[in-house]
Amino acid sequence: MKIKEFPDTQEKPPETRVSLTRVGVTGVKKLIKIQRKNKRPIILLPEFNVYVNLPDYQKGAHMSRNPEAINEIIEDTITQPETQLESLCAKLVKHLLEKHEYAITAETEAKSEYMITKVSPVTKRKTQETTKIIAKAIATKNKDNTITVKKMIGAEVVGMTVCPCAQESTEQNTKDKLKEFLDDKTIEKVMNVVTSASHNQRGIGTILIEVPEKQDINVEDIINIIQDSMSSPVCEILKRPDENHIVTKAHENPVFVEDCVRNMIKKLIIKYPELPAESQLTIRQVNEESIHQHNAFAEKTTTMGELRKEMGAN
Amino acid sequence: MKIKEFPDTQEKPPETRVSLTRVGVTGVKKLIKIQRKNKRPIILLPEFNVYVNLPDYQKGAHMSRNPEAINEIIEDTITQPETQLESLCAKLVKHLLEKHEYAITAETEAKSEYMITKVSPVTKRKTQETTKIIAKAIATKNKDNTITVKKMIGAEVVGMTVCPCAQESTEQNTKDKLKEFLDDKTIEKVMNVVTSASHNQRGIGTILIEVPEKQDINVEDIINIIQDSMSSPVCEILKRPDENHIVTKAHENPVFVEDCVRNMIKKLIIKYPELPAESQLTIRQVNEESIHQHNAFAEKTTTMGELRKEMGAN
Amino acid sequence: MKIKEFPDTQEKPPETRVSLTRVGVTGVKKLIKIQRKNKRPIILLPEFNVYVNLPDYQKGAHMSRNPEAINEIIEDTITQPETQLESLCAKLVKHLLEKHEYAITAETEAKSEYMITKVSPVTKRKTQETTKIIAKAIATKNKDNTITVKKMIGAEVVGMTVCPCAQESTEQNTKDKLKEFLDDKTIEKVMNVVTSASHNQRGIGTILIEVPEKQDINVEDIINIIQDSMSSPVCEILKRPDENHIVTKAHENPVFVEDCVRNMIKKLIIKYPELPAESQLTIRQVNEESIHQHNAFAEKTTTMGELRKEMGAN
Amino acid sequence: MKIKEFPDTQEKPPETRVSLTRVGVTGVKKLIKIQRKNKRPIILLPEFNVYVNLPDYQKGAHMSRNPEAINEIIEDTITQPETQLESLCAKLVKHLLEKHEYAITAETEAKSEYMITKVSPVTKRKTQETTKIIAKAIATKNKDNTITVKKMIGAEVVGMTVCPCAQESTEQNTKDKLKEFLDDKTIEKVMNVVTSASHNQRGIGTILIEVPEKQDINVEDIINIIQDSMSSPVCEILKRPDENHIVTKAHENPVFVEDCVRNMIKKLIIKYPELPAESQLTIRQVNEESIHQHNAFAEKTTTMGELRKEMGAN
Repeated sequence: MKIKEFPDTQEKPPETRVSLTRVGVTGVKKLIKIQRKNKRPIILLPEFNVYVNLPDYQKGAHMSRNPEAINEIIEDTITQPETQLESLCAKLVKHLLEKHEYAITAETEAKSEYMITKVSPVTKRKTQETTKIIAKAIATKNKDNTITVKKMIGAEVVGMTVCPCAQESTEQNTKDKLKEFLDDKTIEKVMNVVTSASHNQRGIGTILIEVPEKQDINVEDIINIIQDSMSSPVCEILKRPDENHIVTKAHENPVFVEDCVRNMIKKLIIKYPELPAESQLTIRQVNEESIHQHNAFAEKTTTMGELRKEMGAN
Repeated sequence: MKIKEFPDTQEKPPETRVSLTRVGVTGVKKLIKIQRKNKRPIILLPEFNVYVNLPDYQKGAHMSRNPEAINEIIEDTITQPETQLESLCAKLVKHLLEKHEYAITAETEAKSEYMITKVSPVTKRKTQETTKIIAKAIATKNKDNTITVKKMIGAEVVGMTVCPCAQESTEQNTKDKLKEFLDDKTIEKVMNVVTSASHNQRGIGTILIEVPEKQDINVEDIINIIQDSMSSPVCEILKRPDENHIVTKAHENPVFVEDCVRNMIKKLIIKYPELPAESQLTIRQVNEESIHQHNAFAEKTTTMGELRKEMGAN
Repeated sequence: MKIKEFPDTQEKPPETRVSLTRVGVTGVKKLIKIQRKNKRPIILLPEFNVYVNLPDYQKGAHMSRNPEAINEIIEDTITQPETQLESLCAKLVKHLLEKHEYAITAETEAKSEYMITKVSPVTKRKTQETTKIIAKAIATKNKDNTITVKKMIGAEVVGMTVCPCAQESTEQNTKDKLKEFLDDKTIEKVMNVVTSASHNQRGIGTILIEVPEKQDINVEDIINIIQDSMSSPVCEILKRPDENHIVTKAHENPVFVEDCVRNMIKKLIIKYPELPAESQLTIRQVNEESIHQHNAFAEKTTTMGELRKEMGAN
Repeated sequence: MKIKEFPDTQEKPPETRVSLTRVGVTGVKKLIKIQRKNKRPIILLPEFNVYVNLPDYQKGAHMSRNPEAINEIIEDTITQPETQLESLCAKLVKHLLEKHEYAITAETEAKSEYMITKVSPVTKRKTQETTKIIAKAIATKNKDNTITVKKMIGAEVVGMTVCPCAQESTEQNTKDKLKEFLDDKTIEKVMNVVTSASHNQRGIGTILIEVPEKQDINVEDIINIIQDSMSSPVCEILKRPDENHIVTKAHENPVFVEDCVRNMIKKLIIKYPELPAESQLTIRQVNEESIHQHNAFAEKTTTMGELRKEMGAN
C-alpha cells in the first residue's frame, strides 16, 4: 500500500519568531533491562521526559521523533546492553540530536523504581524493597559539530529520622525527676541504659550528582549513602526483635533534617575524590514530621569543587 | 440575538439499551460560605462530584445541568444561608432530581479543606490549621413521587501515633539493663519517670457517618473525636516546651492503628446516642509507619445498630 | 546468637472490645514474573494492599506477617510459576488465613503497570506502551474450615473519545452554510466526505470483573474491550499518516462517556457467556473533557446475571 | 505557670561544618483575604513553602519560627490589608530575615486556587471557576545590612488546544475527495464553511514573571494572557450553542504546544513594556494530547531584556 503524504505543518515559519528553550514529550514509560557488570541484570520501568531546543524559524518540533528515539535506544540495548540508566540517557540525548537536525541541545530525565534487597537486622528476614533512581543527560552540539554530553545520576530513598531536640528535652525531664530519689552518679548510669523518646518519622533523602560521560558510579552506593545519613534505614519485614533493634539504634543516632544533608555531603566527599570540581550536586532531605502536618526541608546545591573548598578538603 | 438551536443528541435512544448506575461530572471546585449557627461564617473550597442514574432509553445525561445545579444551589445560599456542607449537598441532590426529570437517584460527594484553630499546649501559640471534611448526599425518588434523602458527614484528620509494641520492647530492654545495678523497687520508680522510645508517625483518621436529613451534627465534634483517638494531636507551631509536652503525652498514650479505630468507635457511641440504628458508619485509620515504607491500615464499616449490639451498648 | 524475646503486645485484649472489618498494610511494591501459557513471561511491578479481619478479643493484628506472606507467595512462583496476577492474589489470601489463625477473611488488591505492544495504524511503527491492570481476591473461612475464594481481574486503559453532540452541531452549521450555494443532493455528497470537528479528549475506561477461582480470563482481552469501546485507541508513535488515520476514524465513531460504558457492557456479555450469574462487575469511563476543567463520568455496577436479564440476553 | 526551659539543640555547632542553601518547612496551608484596590476582597487558600539559608556554624534552623512568621504576616493583614499574594510573600521574606538572625537569604513560594468569573459565550451563563496562582519572593541581606527583595507572580491556567497538523491533513483528505465531484472554485467555497476535525485536548499554560518590589501587576491579566494564547478557553457551563461556538472557534484557531508559548511571549512583551530588562520569565505549556498517553511540552526561560532583543522589540 502506498502511504499518502501530508503537509509538514511543523516545518513552516511560526507567526511569532522566537526560539524556545525546551520542546518535547513528558511521561513516556518503558520497561528496560540494565545489564550490570558481573551482576544479574535488573529490570527498570522508568518514565522519560525528552526535550530539544527549537530555533526561531520553525513552527514546531517533530514530536513523534521523541518516542521513536527512546524506542530505538531501548532496542539497541538488546545487542549492546547498557550498564546504567544514566549511560542509556546519554546515548538517548545524542540520538535526539541526530533525529532533530535543527536542534543544538537535547535533554532527558528518567525516573524509575529500583529494587534493592534488604535483610532485617536481627532475625535476618530477606526482602525485596523499592527505592527510586533518577538519571539525566544533556547533549550540546558545539560549533565544530562535536557533541558534549553531561550526565547525572541520583536516587530518592526513604529512611527513619529521630529528632535530637525533642530527645534532649525528654532526657532533661527524666533527669530532673530522677534527681528526686537518685544520686548524680546513679542517674548517669541510668541514663546510659535508657532510650529516651523523641518524635521520629519517615525522611526522604535525595542525591543528584553530575558524573563525567566516561566515568561510572554505582547507584547502589548513592542509595546506601542516603540511607546511612538518617537515624536508621526502614525495612519491610521487621519481627519484634528487629523492630526493637531499629528503634533503639535510631534513637542512639538522632538527626535533624539539616544533619541528614550534611551527613550525605560528608560521605559523598569521601566516596568520590575523583569527581571533577565542576560536577554539580543537589543534596536534599524532607522529613514528614510526626508532630506537624507540614514537612521539614533542607537542601544544598553546589559543585564538588566549591564543596571541597568549603570543607577544607581540597 | 436569537440563539440557534441544535439537535438534542443526548435524548436519542442508545445503541445498547442498558441503564447506567451513575452518570455525571467530577472535579467541580467552588468557593462557598457556610453560615454556622451563632458563629462566624466559614469559607470552604469544596470539590464536588455529582451523578444521576440514567435509564436505558436515553443515550446521554444532560451534563451541563450538573454544574448548573451546583451553581444554583450555591447562589441560593446568598438569600438562604446553609449551616452545613452536608445540608447543602442534601439540597443539591434534590435539585438534581428536578433538573434531570428522567433520573430517580441523584448523588453528590464534596470534599473540602476546613480551617480549625489550634493552640499549642504549653506556650499557648494560636494558629489556624487545615483538616479535611467530607459530605455526601443521595436522593431517591419514591413511587409516590416523594423524595428520600440520605446525608453523610465526615472528616479526615492528621495526628500522631506512638507504637505500643515497640515501646514495650524498649522498656523491657531498659529494665533488663537496670537489673544489673538497681533493685526491683528502684527500677519501678525509675521506669515511672522514664519516657521510653518507640516509633511514632503521622496517622490519618477518617470518620464518615450517616445522619438523618433533619438532624444536624457539628463536624468539629467529628474532627475532635478523630484527633483525640490518636496518641496526640499534631500542631503547626510548637516551641520547645510544647514539643516536649506533645512528645511526652504521646508516649504516655501509645496506640496501634487498630486502637485508633476502636477509640473513635467508643467516642462515637457515647457522643451520638440519638443516631438511628440504620445509620451507616465508616471509621478508618492509616498510619504512615516511620519504620517502614508502607502504611498500616485498620477499618470498621458497620451501622450504629450493629455497633451498639456488638458492644452491648444497646 | 540467641535472639531475645519481647512481649506480644498485639495478642492482649483491647480496651474497647469490638471487632474490625479490615486490618493490614498498604503500599507494598514488588517486582514479579508472570509465566503466561505458551507466551513470553511478563514482568509486573504491582503495589499490594493486604488485609485480614480482626476479632474483638485481640488488640492488634501481627502486621509483619502481611509482607512476609507476600514474599513467600512470590518466592513460590520461582518453582510454581503463576500465570495471572489474580491467581497469585488468590493464593496470597489463602496464605494470609494460614498465617493469621484468628482471621476468617483475608483480602488483597494489587495494581500494576502492564506493558502491551502497539502498532501504529498506517506506517506500522511498533511500540511498547503501558496500561494498568488490577487484581483482587477475598478468602473466607467457612464453618467447616474450608475456604471460599473470590477473585477479580480488571484493567484501566487510556483511549480517545470524540463527542457526538458537538459534532452533530458542527455538521448542522456546515449544512446550513452549504445550503446558501449548493443543492441538497450535493450537500449530502459533500457531508459524506467531510470529517466534522468536535471536542475530543483522553478517556480512561475501567473494567473490574469477578471470575470463579478455577476459571481464567486473559487480561489482554479486557484491555482490548476497553480500548475498542472508545472512539479510537491512543498510540505512542504516530507519524502524520497515522495521526490522520486515528483522527479520521475517531471522528467516524463519536461516543459519549455513557456510550463507552454501554459498549464495554455489550462486548463483555458476548465475550464471556460462561461467567456465572453472580459474577460482580464494575464498568466505568472517565473523560477528561477538552472543553471543561472537570471530567465526565459514567458507571455501571451490577452482576452478570442482572446484566443479562436487563439486556434480554439470558 | 512558669514554663520550663529546654536546651537549644539547634544552636550547637554541627558535626560536619558546611553551610546549607535552603532550610525550612513545606506544605503550610493558610486561608487569607486579599484586599484588591477598588474591588471586592478575594479569599485564597495558599500553600506556603518557606526557607532560609543556614551558616556552617549552626546545627539547625529554628523551624518553629517559619510557621510563626507566616502567621504574623497574615495577622498583619487584618490592620494593613495586602493587595497581592506576591506582596504578602515579599513582606514574609523580610520578616523571616528578622526572625532568623543568622540567615542572609530567605525564600518563599505560595500556590493557591484563584476564583475567576466566566460567562459562556452564547447563552451567557455566568459561573465561578478555579485557576491557580503562584507567588514567590527572595530576600537577600546586603553587606550594608539593607535588604534586597525579588518577587515573582504567575498563574497556571487550563484551556483547549487544537492541533494544526492533524487539521491540515484532515482538510487535505476532504479536498482530495471533493475533487472527485466538485470543481476547484466550489471546493474553495465548501472548505470555507467546513470546520475540519483535528485532535484537541486540555492544555495547561504557565507564566511566572519577576516584578520589581515596588511595581504591581494584576494577576488576572496574566490569567487572560495564558487563556487567550490557546485555541479557546474552557468553560464550566456550556449549553449546546455555547459548546458549538467554542468548538468552532477553537478549530478556527489551531495551535501547537509551541505556538501557545510564543503567543504568551508576544502578549507579555506588548502588555509589560515597563518591566525591567533583568526580569526573569518562565513561560510553559503542557498539552494532554488526546491521541497519546504522554504529554506535549514547550518552555521558554529567559529575561525580558533578552526576549526584547531576540524579537527585535528593544
